Amino acid sequence: MLTAEELERVIVVLVATRNSLNIGAAARAMSNFGFPHLRLVRPWDPSWQEARSAVGAAELLAHTEVFATVGEAVADCTLVLGTTAVTAGGRRDLQHPLDRLQEAAALVREHLGATETRAAVLFGSEKTGLTNDDLSHCHRLLRIPTREQHISMNLGQAVAVCTYEFMRAGSDAQSTAAEVPAQVAPAQAGEVERLTQMLMETLTQSGYITPGAEAATEEKLRRELRRMPLTHHDAQLALGMVRQILWKMKNENKS
Amino acid sequence: MLTAEELERVIVVLVATRNSLNIGAAARAMSNFGFPHLRLVRPWDPSWQEARSAVGAAELLAHTEVFATVGEAVADCTLVLGTTAVTAGGRRDLQHPLDRLQEAAALVREHLGATETRAAVLFGSEKTGLTNDDLSHCHRLLRIPTREQHISMNLGQAVAVCTYEFMRAGSDAQSTAAEVPAQVAPAQAGEVERLTQMLMETLTQSGYITPGAEAATEEKLRRELRRMPLTHHDAQLALGMVRQILWKMKNENKS
Repeated sequence: MLTAEELERVIVVLVATRNSLNIGAAARAMSNFGFPHLRLVRPWDPSWQEARSAVGAAELLAHTEVFATVGEAVADCTLVLGTTAVTAGGRRDLQHPLDRLQEAAALVREHLGATETRAAVLFGSEKTGLTNDDLSHCHRLLRIPTREQHISMNLGQAVAVCTYEFMRAGSDAQSTAAEVPAQVAPAQAGEVERLTQMLMETLTQSGYITPGAEAATEEKLRRELRRMPLTHHDAQLALGMVRQILWKMKNENKS
Repeated sequence: MLTAEELERVIVVLVATRNSLNIGAAARAMSNFGFPHLRLVRPWDPSWQEARSAVGAAELLAHTEVFATVGEAVADCTLVLGTTAVTAGGRRDLQHPLDRLQEAAALVREHLGATETRAAVLFGSEKTGLTNDDLSHCHRLLRIPTREQHISMNLGQAVAVCTYEFMRAGSDAQSTAAEVPAQVAPAQAGEVERLTQMLMETLTQSGYITPGAEAATEEKLRRELRRMPLTHHDAQLALGMVRQILWKMKNENKS
């Protein structure tokens, strides 16, 4: 069971949602289960705030924030989970660890208990789910265990099931994946993104990135870095190293 | 976890549903989680079968049965649960034992395992819930643990959360381990060490390492890299990047 303070540190992020009724439905379920913070990335319908499906969730929608990119929406989070309908067996090229919802929920609870930071859960658009670029911001994926013959859930229902499981009492034995030691401050998504950008610049300077391959390399790099259990300390250390390397390269180029 | 045969013996009953979109949404969630049998009592909208919200659940709706009374709809069931938003504290006159959803789900699973009979779960209309007459057909009540300040759930979401909990694996179930993508080869120690050395050389070239601090930096770097869950693929990718950066730095220095 999450405390009120912990519920405040779970962020639901809806990315490129097409139907504002689904935003309203998500808001209602979040309010039912006590999760106050919804963030939207590029919602299609500018009048999402008036969704009639948000019965009882007007207050939640009133302070829902809108962002232009996933990176900005999760910048202050230290654990970012992406939801997917895909199974490990269904996609050979799955780049992230994939947890079933109940294991993912255990991980979120553990994270909230061990740190004072935020966790985000991303839901993609109704038709296409999360894009590879969206996924590159995620540390792990979670899957609601729907049956193979009918995998795809309605968005509002998926948010309802996830938030229910997150706050569900009598959670199972703690997750085996305790990657970050307790009381160690994990890296914020914003730090990791700065590191990603600085590495991209360094790789460009070095000639590693061939013209036309920028986007693919950036996506790969972003994904790999999110997979690593970086602490705030690690991120700062790496930033210092890359900053110096980059400075040196630029400096040499000038001379 | 329910077997396919047990899933066949759980009946979802929607009573006096007003909005056929909610019937479609309920059908979709049931289909997602593998419950094939929906029954309706006096649906308001005669065209419920065409609900556009029933994505992927056409087959389920095609054999959904309609009844005139709750009594007929649950006639072949031996355990009948009614859903309610009311808490025990909120209504003194509650005539039934009231379980939280997860206890109710355990009860249903137990019942299905111990008998060869059917269990029904009733959901009332959107506005008023189950009437006293409807409740008189129930053995027990179940409540989804929504928060006091916002008790009332959307009907389709309530069905989604209940069916999810019914089929949810128990705490002593097998898979605490995450679904990890298959065929991922971890990095060999030799690879990681090569990466460490190449990074050290790069940092030295860049001027990051101050004289006398080599050993301490190397130790820190080695420790950090070993903490990361690097795959063989990750290590090769990183080696390629650092190699190019190093080559560029040395090259520039020569010119």
